[in-house]
Amino acid sequence: MSETPDSVVRTYIQTHRAAFLDDLAEWLRIPSVSAQPEHADDVRRSADWLAAKLEETGFPTAEVWPTPGAPAVFAEWPSGDPDAPTVLVYGHHDVQPAAREDGWHTDPFEPVLKDGRMYARGAADDKGQVFFHTLGVRAHLAATGRTTPAVNLKLLIEGEEESGSPHFRDLVEANAARLAADTVIVSDTGMWAEDTPTVCTGMRGLAECEITLYGPDQDIHSGSFGGAVPNPATVAARLVAALHDDNERITVPGFYDGIAPLTDEERELFAELPFDEEQWLRTAKSHGTLGEAGHTTLERLWARPTAEVNGIGGGYQGPGGKTIIPSSAMVKLSFRLVAGQDPDRVEQLVGEWVAARVPAGIRHETVFSASTRPCLTPLDHPALQSVVRAMGRAFGQKIRFTREGGSGPAADLQDVLGAPVLFLGISVPSDGWHAPNEKVELDLLLKGVETSAHLWGDLAAVAAHR
Amino acid sequence: MSETPDSVVRTYIQTHRAAFLDDLAEWLRIPSVSAQPEHADDVRRSADWLAAKLEETGFPTAEVWPTPGAPAVFAEWPSGDPDAPTVLVYGHHDVQPAAREDGWHTDPFEPVLKDGRMYARGAADDKGQVFFHTLGVRAHLAATGRTTPAVNLKLLIEGEEESGSPHFRDLVEANAARLAADTVIVSDTGMWAEDTPTVCTGMRGLAECEITLYGPDQDIHSGSFGGAVPNPATVAARLVAALHDDNERITVPGFYDGIAPLTDEERELFAELPFDEEQWLRTAKSHGTLGEAGHTTLERLWARPTAEVNGIGGGYQGPGGKTIIPSSAMVKLSFRLVAGQDPDRVEQLVGEWVAARVPAGIRHETVFSASTRPCLTPLDHPALQSVVRAMGRAFGQKIRFTREGGSGPAADLQDVLGAPVLFLGISVPSDGWHAPNEKVELDLLLKGVETSAHLWGDLAAVAAHR
Repeated sequence: MSETPDSVVRTYIQTHRAAFLDDLAEWLRIPSVSAQPEHADDVRRSADWLAAKLEETGFPTAEVWPTPGAPAVFAEWPSGDPDAPTVLVYGHHDVQPAAREDGWHTDPFEPVLKDGRMYARGAADDKGQVFFHTLGVRAHLAATGRTTPAVNLKLLIEGEEESGSPHFRDLVEANAARLAADTVIVSDTGMWAEDTPTVCTGMRGLAECEITLYGPDQDIHSGSFGGAVPNPATVAARLVAALHDDNERITVPGFYDGIAPLTDEERELFAELPFDEEQWLRTAKSHGTLGEAGHTTLERLWARPTAEVNGIGGGYQGPGGKTIIPSSAMVKLSFRLVAGQDPDRVEQLVGEWVAARVPAGIRHETVFSASTRPCLTPLDHPALQSVVRAMGRAFGQKIRFTREGGSGPAADLQDVLGAPVLFLGISVPSDGWHAPNEKVELDLLLKGVETSAHLWGDLAAVAAHR
Repeated sequence: MSETPDSVVRTYIQTHRAAFLDDLAEWLRIPSVSAQPEHADDVRRSADWLAAKLEETGFPTAEVWPTPGAPAVFAEWPSGDPDAPTVLVYGHHDVQPAAREDGWHTDPFEPVLKDGRMYARGAADDKGQVFFHTLGVRAHLAATGRTTPAVNLKLLIEGEEESGSPHFRDLVEANAARLAADTVIVSDTGMWAEDTPTVCTGMRGLAECEITLYGPDQDIHSGSFGGAVPNPATVAARLVAALHDDNERITVPGFYDGIAPLTDEERELFAELPFDEEQWLRTAKSHGTLGEAGHTTLERLWARPTAEVNGIGGGYQGPGGKTIIPSSAMVKLSFRLVAGQDPDRVEQLVGEWVAARVPAGIRHETVFSASTRPCLTPLDHPALQSVVRAMGRAFGQKIRFTREGGSGPAADLQDVLGAPVLFLGISVPSDGWHAPNEKVELDLLLKGVETSAHLWGDLAAVAAHR
């Protein structure tokens, strides 16, 4: 029986499977919860553990990079080939909070193997999906007979993703030269379903603002003054209501400028996915769909921008009634953005739109917080094709395409490094990110290893043929 | 020099002025704060004090009426004349909370006479305005040589007005027979200004509701789900925004049914008042006017209904951002109603309007709380003319007309007893109701006594001529 590269990879993975899972379990035992100050030492310990493990894996460089918050890990393994492309893998080693009393069946920081799954906080988000690259690169070397990867392989594994990545952009900017890459691979997303392997091609961007509206200098009596002075809560509500037209399209002038309409191919790729709206509504814990006219739910989630109220408040919110005109009211809005939209421009348009709609007698403040750019890799991008081929070899199935409705720090890498961002993830919706009993499917985890093992050679070959 | 009835009244008041003020001060020393449980005994003491004082004044009947909360005082002095009309005076003996540290220059419960004013909590709201009737009825007897009033005089002085009169309607309903009256005189309002004596001819009614909108079963991620499911905070805002049209008219179908347009006479009477909008805005602590098109500020406040947001809330209201679609949102609305509107009908219309506007996928609950009817006495009502004449004799000036934008338990008396409600008050806006350093102007207080002294004879004479 002749040995193909694919079978060598599989054999290598089978041989090292047990040790790989033991190592991952060891890492998962470190409760690297970045949001909880009492776990700050654990997050540092997690970074140290990973750096040591990457060195053990063979990375000549593996460093812990401090930030004003929790540290990141950087590792680098040069190819040695003069024309080898450079790939930067992004992931994170911090995890969401977890406590037994939240509904965990077992200790969230004591991994349990059961029914082909590993249960632990971080099993899927994101330690498992970072860690498959360590065995992947070893399998790649075993299958190719190389002593160094076919690409210049870099890893940047941050420690504050679950806390909103407050120092990530600064870190990337400060280290842009060392992080320089031709392609960024983000290992922090998932696939459509266990039986439907997919590649994510983009994430939406994000702009957020808080609008505060000031009316009377204090709450005033709605009997004595009602009907004759502007009510800031009413003004807040009118702003929100005016954000969309009857087709649920956003009314801010210029908001949609620069967005290319979905192509027929893109719409068909979305429509090919086995989308069950009833089931999706259960995931969304929602009881109906509502969105931009002329688009399907998946198109609305992945390819169209949004304006959502995240919070609204003003006046008396306690039990019973209080007949006042409130002194102030506030609205928190977030806008998800898609390719072609620039958060800075959107903020300017929204700011002008708000200012034009606030009536005399009401003072307003609109404060924008840090924004995130959208990212989208064209379907015909050569590196995307490499990911699709590598996954296809691992899964033995047609690889389909998804996008991500959320926004992530990956966009900072795209921005600062000027490299396309690709998403490679093997997690599935049932993995329970941020929820009790988070798990990773071991089959899928090992397919991730296999994909990683195939990917570096493919990317190098594509680069060589250009 | 011949003695006219008016000069007898004045002389009588001058003679008894000092004792009257001493008595009032004694009553004001009792801190009858109905909202503070620690003052429950004081409220009871205040009721006992008043009942004893009314007996001393000459009322053959003076009773403390218990309620599940604080007690009211009822007193009755029959005329003896077989055809005498019956008049019920309403006021309250409880007061707003007050503490030295709120900004009082002196102890709020140790009355101070200074610069022709009496400073104390309750001086104007409402003990002073209740108490002027005690000297008033004695002056009436002195001037007419009667031993009983010209009308069957009843007083109902409640003890929970500052706590929202939670048991007042029940009390009135349970004692409707003893309270039966041809005319109700409410002594718990004020005049336009010291130099502009006025009679209030009506108060707005009130309907209140809280609308809760339920979307996803829990807060969900605005990236993963945004743009594809209905957001209850957005729905709440759209309800509020849809409440008014571009002319600030309320859009609920049928809302304005039954309201008679203001007559030219009514508009002229409002316009005659020396209204300074800049100064009024300072009182309203507001920075602009906004209201129903085609109406002046006073018309909007007194003669037109409103829909105001008293509170709105949903989603994340803390510092920073949180990218969620909130699970629920709520709006508290209050509607001020004017003559011709029925609160029950308005509640039904609003309920239907809300139900028709909530989109699929959002569940809603609309809860209405206790409502208050509007009351308005026609300008040509004989009893109103009596009040105007009595005030005119006391003030020696033209008496103008105001209305009250707020709503009060007086409407319950109108409702249950089927009697017209008239408002007789001598307080002025500078008296500081509910504020530190509440006071009453002694000159005006004695004009109140004088008005009361003239009113009973006038009401009896009008009844006799019908």
